[in-house]
Amino acid sequence: MKIKAGIVGATGYAGAELVRLLSNHPEAEVAAISSVSFEGQKLSDIYPSYTFLNDMICENSDAVVEKSDVIFAALPHGLSQELAEKCISNDKAFIDLGADFRLESEDEYTQWYGGTFLDKELHAQSVYGLPEFFRDKIKGKKLIANPGCYTTCSPLAIAPAIVNGLVSTKGIICDCKSGVTGAGRKPTQGSHFPELNEGFHAYKVASHRHTPEIEQTLSKLSGEDVTITFVPHLLPVNRGILATVYADLKEGVTYEEIRKAYEDYYKDEFFIRLLDDGKCADIHNVRYSNFCDISLHFDNRARKLVACAAIDNMVKGAAGQAIQNMNIIFGLDEKTGLVIVPPAF
Amino acid sequence: MKIKAGIVGATGYAGAELVRLLSNHPEAEVAAISSVSFEGQKLSDIYPSYTFLNDMICENSDAVVEKSDVIFAALPHGLSQELAEKCISNDKAFIDLGADFRLESEDEYTQWYGGTFLDKELHAQSVYGLPEFFRDKIKGKKLIANPGCYTTCSPLAIAPAIVNGLVSTKGIICDCKSGVTGAGRKPTQGSHFPELNEGFHAYKVASHRHTPEIEQTLSKLSGEDVTITFVPHLLPVNRGILATVYADLKEGVTYEEIRKAYEDYYKDEFFIRLLDDGKCADIHNVRYSNFCDISLHFDNRARKLVACAAIDNMVKGAAGQAIQNMNIIFGLDEKTGLVIVPPAF
Amino acid sequence: MKIKAGIVGATGYAGAELVRLLSNHPEAEVAAISSVSFEGQKLSDIYPSYTFLNDMICENSDAVVEKSDVIFAALPHGLSQELAEKCISNDKAFIDLGADFRLESEDEYTQWYGGTFLDKELHAQSVYGLPEFFRDKIKGKKLIANPGCYTTCSPLAIAPAIVNGLVSTKGIICDCKSGVTGAGRKPTQGSHFPELNEGFHAYKVASHRHTPEIEQTLSKLSGEDVTITFVPHLLPVNRGILATVYADLKEGVTYEEIRKAYEDYYKDEFFIRLLDDGKCADIHNVRYSNFCDISLHFDNRARKLVACAAIDNMVKGAAGQAIQNMNIIFGLDEKTGLVIVPPAF
Amino acid sequence: MKIKAGIVGATGYAGAELVRLLSNHPEAEVAAISSVSFEGQKLSDIYPSYTFLNDMICENSDAVVEKSDVIFAALPHGLSQELAEKCISNDKAFIDLGADFRLESEDEYTQWYGGTFLDKELHAQSVYGLPEFFRDKIKGKKLIANPGCYTTCSPLAIAPAIVNGLVSTKGIICDCKSGVTGAGRKPTQGSHFPELNEGFHAYKVASHRHTPEIEQTLSKLSGEDVTITFVPHLLPVNRGILATVYADLKEGVTYEEIRKAYEDYYKDEFFIRLLDDGKCADIHNVRYSNFCDISLHFDNRARKLVACAAIDNMVKGAAGQAIQNMNIIFGLDEKTGLVIVPPAF
Repeated sequence: MKIKAGIVGATGYAGAELVRLLSNHPEAEVAAISSVSFEGQKLSDIYPSYTFLNDMICENSDAVVEKSDVIFAALPHGLSQELAEKCISNDKAFIDLGADFRLESEDEYTQWYGGTFLDKELHAQSVYGLPEFFRDKIKGKKLIANPGCYTTCSPLAIAPAIVNGLVSTKGIICDCKSGVTGAGRKPTQGSHFPELNEGFHAYKVASHRHTPEIEQTLSKLSGEDVTITFVPHLLPVNRGILATVYADLKEGVTYEEIRKAYEDYYKDEFFIRLLDDGKCADIHNVRYSNFCDISLHFDNRARKLVACAAIDNMVKGAAGQAIQNMNIIFGLDEKTGLVIVPPAF
Repeated sequence: MKIKAGIVGATGYAGAELVRLLSNHPEAEVAAISSVSFEGQKLSDIYPSYTFLNDMICENSDAVVEKSDVIFAALPHGLSQELAEKCISNDKAFIDLGADFRLESEDEYTQWYGGTFLDKELHAQSVYGLPEFFRDKIKGKKLIANPGCYTTCSPLAIAPAIVNGLVSTKGIICDCKSGVTGAGRKPTQGSHFPELNEGFHAYKVASHRHTPEIEQTLSKLSGEDVTITFVPHLLPVNRGILATVYADLKEGVTYEEIRKAYEDYYKDEFFIRLLDDGKCADIHNVRYSNFCDISLHFDNRARKLVACAAIDNMVKGAAGQAIQNMNIIFGLDEKTGLVIVPPAF
Repeated sequence: MKIKAGIVGATGYAGAELVRLLSNHPEAEVAAISSVSFEGQKLSDIYPSYTFLNDMICENSDAVVEKSDVIFAALPHGLSQELAEKCISNDKAFIDLGADFRLESEDEYTQWYGGTFLDKELHAQSVYGLPEFFRDKIKGKKLIANPGCYTTCSPLAIAPAIVNGLVSTKGIICDCKSGVTGAGRKPTQGSHFPELNEGFHAYKVASHRHTPEIEQTLSKLSGEDVTITFVPHLLPVNRGILATVYADLKEGVTYEEIRKAYEDYYKDEFFIRLLDDGKCADIHNVRYSNFCDISLHFDNRARKLVACAAIDNMVKGAAGQAIQNMNIIFGLDEKTGLVIVPPAF
Repeated sequence: MKIKAGIVGATGYAGAELVRLLSNHPEAEVAAISSVSFEGQKLSDIYPSYTFLNDMICENSDAVVEKSDVIFAALPHGLSQELAEKCISNDKAFIDLGADFRLESEDEYTQWYGGTFLDKELHAQSVYGLPEFFRDKIKGKKLIANPGCYTTCSPLAIAPAIVNGLVSTKGIICDCKSGVTGAGRKPTQGSHFPELNEGFHAYKVASHRHTPEIEQTLSKLSGEDVTITFVPHLLPVNRGILATVYADLKEGVTYEEIRKAYEDYYKDEFFIRLLDDGKCADIHNVRYSNFCDISLHFDNRARKLVACAAIDNMVKGAAGQAIQNMNIIFGLDEKTGLVIVPPAF
């Protein structure tokens, strides 16, 4: 029998992408969807590309919890905690695509998001769902904090160098560039076609909420207290994030050592594609898929490692990774439903 | 055992798309690929999105024929006939994505393409592979002329009105707009990003080679000798064709009659999505899928039917339809491997 | 002394474009601007590209009328008539970029826009400002109805053939494709980048308000009662409209006659660029300029004339043409301030 | 009498942009143009946007030198030196948009470009034409090395902080993103629309030829030997470069000191627009203009200055700056012909 998956907040971009990806999953099916804004309406009226393929009606979140084995929540921050409680107390799995459970430190959560942890015990049960780093901790859990988009690709780009002590943990810079879907479905002046098209700019420089989340991951991996500079930019494309990560090479470290560290670290990771020397990770090549392409560049003149990581922000950066987490907690092969060849054009 | 599919001309856009779509097909697998320009090279070096997913080496066409049950050919016109002969004489199925077998009249072929039919008997064995119209003739065949992109969506847009005698067969206009992949992989000044981006223009007005092919289909369907005006335009998008087709309403014909004719004609067609009144077919909603979305518009003031049809030119307009044809001739469910939810963004 | 130009509705796209173009005008200057939504704010806070170049504060419309010799109004329909009255009674010139004065028939206005003519005498004083057709009537006038975007390029494409009786006035089709700025500054779901980008669709098929305006122009030019089929589409580009206009050739008409008719008709028109045979009008080549490029195509098989006209919808289709009208009514060389070389990329 | 300007290499993008900008210059005119590939052809056949506005015929370079007071050369590197010699010996001004005269050190030139200085004395006469830094040295010169695109915006972003000793000169990172016109007119696989559109990637990481040029400028300004990490990326837009420059703040330096240093340094610079706090430089806002927008961001947590600079790579990064240099050496107001309001959309 298939896993019954429910989606709370299905009409947002992450929710809609879950619907698309789950339609391709042989062991799971969408059992129910909900939306506050569109309750009672068909999903395919909001996303006409789904016409006749998913004409489900948006219900309320209670209906979703009741009908599902696993609940994916794609909600504004602050709204997941109560829902999580309900799911866990009903022995359902809960995978949160929002930020409520991502930060372990309540202080940091309060500082960056302005709220508090409603139920500290619940937070203690949650696990940060970046499988390539924390797979063993995810197994057997019921409450997953699915990472954000920038917070997936930035650590993936630099982790092996940090874990192996090849670069300094001080002064790391994550210069990231994201497609527009990262900003969600709601139209704004900044995402209005004529004002975004043919444009490019940074935003929330050194003040974006993904900063402490990246630092938390890198601190865990390195065992040191990592502070980064994180600068996101907005690309005039639909999908994709490229993280260009800069770190200071430790004295004497050679490119061969770097390369070997990455090869070893990711050798069993299906979704990480470490590119050959001379190639550059490109968001074009991972679109609609759960892959993370990584390319390594060695600036020996300035003694910097430059690592580029490309993901589809809506897949590996959101819905795909959530399904990867679902696969783990339900004991399936992690790749199930996610072996997608990215289109060449 | 899976159907062994071979692709001759695998490094062109249609060939590469076949590789992508077949990777998702449960009953077929890519057995061999060939390329004249890239023989001996890995496909994934040309299309890095395929890295680790398809790293097959391009061989020559003989190897492909030998290793395959069905050969897809995506070649410049004039080059398929000899290959077809070889396949057929070796009892292999042959699906030609080029133009060599599309026109039944050798005179028309000569007039528009400049060549001749090398083997008239072979041409007599071929069938035009537009399943929604000619499914019964495709069954049991070995040699399929897969339609072109414009020639798929234009007739699909207007066929039910013509078949039911609701519009005049005189004066039909097909105003079509295609994404850039339709022009192929070879870089040209016209497809150079800065000169195409933010531009839009018609090309080959009333002189494009797809003209006689559309006329052939509409003539067959109507039993009359149809001459159309066909004007293609180039859109600054990767994929998709929108055909806006205009036809004169016969006297007294109502919108309800039109609508009913379309509903009846396409009621069993999975890949045709007849949109609700008030909606407009959009190439955005069929990308990467084999669907053809059709919307109907009634200009009662000027007594015109306006029918819009949207397809992905590389899927329903090329590789997807070719697989649909493969499914038919191998006795599979026509949808096999082609039930793809188009992305919402 | 320079002409003092005022802009009511300066923060909309047409208003903002007027500011840009007037900055380049040697005989006019922006004296005041107004905005209901942004009164008291700097224009450059809304359009940061204008920073330090135009930091004017938005006032109210009364202030604009008082400070100006000519008032350009870029307002939603229904709101211009009162303002026009005020301007005319104060002996100011009034150029309306909205629809209130475009239709001569109040019945048609009521049918398509839903309002009435508040002051019929005022309407009688207005003139339709498409200089290439009605230049002589514009001279000496104070109240100009500046044409819409589609209604500029569609008639320009076909007028010489109609005026010279070379095509039928029945069954004319205007298949038009517009950039997104035509829909204005307000963000909507349809103009949200991820949903428009990589998409293309028709809208308001055979029901767009520009229909009667195009018909009015063609009827005047031909002396016959012209009914057209008008289908607009939305292009994923910022600027530009391509009108592909189809008309039935009268018996015996040759391409040479058509060509000569266009050459004669437009021989003194600086802003009309009749392209050489074999070329196709492209919106890419008129961006940011007041030019209208026209290409002619002859479908002798189906006996159709296909004429393509490309304009920048915000310039020749709005603000540029308004300035052209201003030049005429103030007795300046019509080209003043509008000799702009369109960028090549 | 107007300055007679000649363009050698007029059919490349920089050359074509010179033609466009000079058409707007009140004190200069294009006297002659040349092209090796298109000699004898009309410029407007290559760039149809120029039709009827500049239909000049491409001549050879000798003709250009003879007819001109100032010669702009937009040639592949290695080809300017001989031409420069000819111009200087004929007492013509020579502005080189290529790389031949940009590096003062022949060793560096040889290392990065592979050639040698043909005439060392000639090189000694040349001056690096970045007016905001070296205006005084440009005055009275005849041989100008016009900077590259990345090499204009990167130093402009960080210079005031360096000159005032507010940041370390070690470890500076220039993460730059350029529109496609930067790669020139020649179609390549990488600039083929379907492969670039919806993509984004770095290229020539830490190995791009603009590296030593940026270092040369920063070294001159700081009086120290600066080594940078320079990583260019390719944006799917026509025009624009955004440089995001990272530098380590010296101990105790406050944001107010940084801000003041920039305000003072650029207070008389018309083409530098220092944006208000909270705004981010966007390439959208400088398109088609000679402006450089700069925004400042202070990462106090990691003690980094992040400075963003946006230019139009073809204007301030090429043709516009070349005209700015021409204005200086001919004693004109530096802004002449370059006061262009960038379009808002």
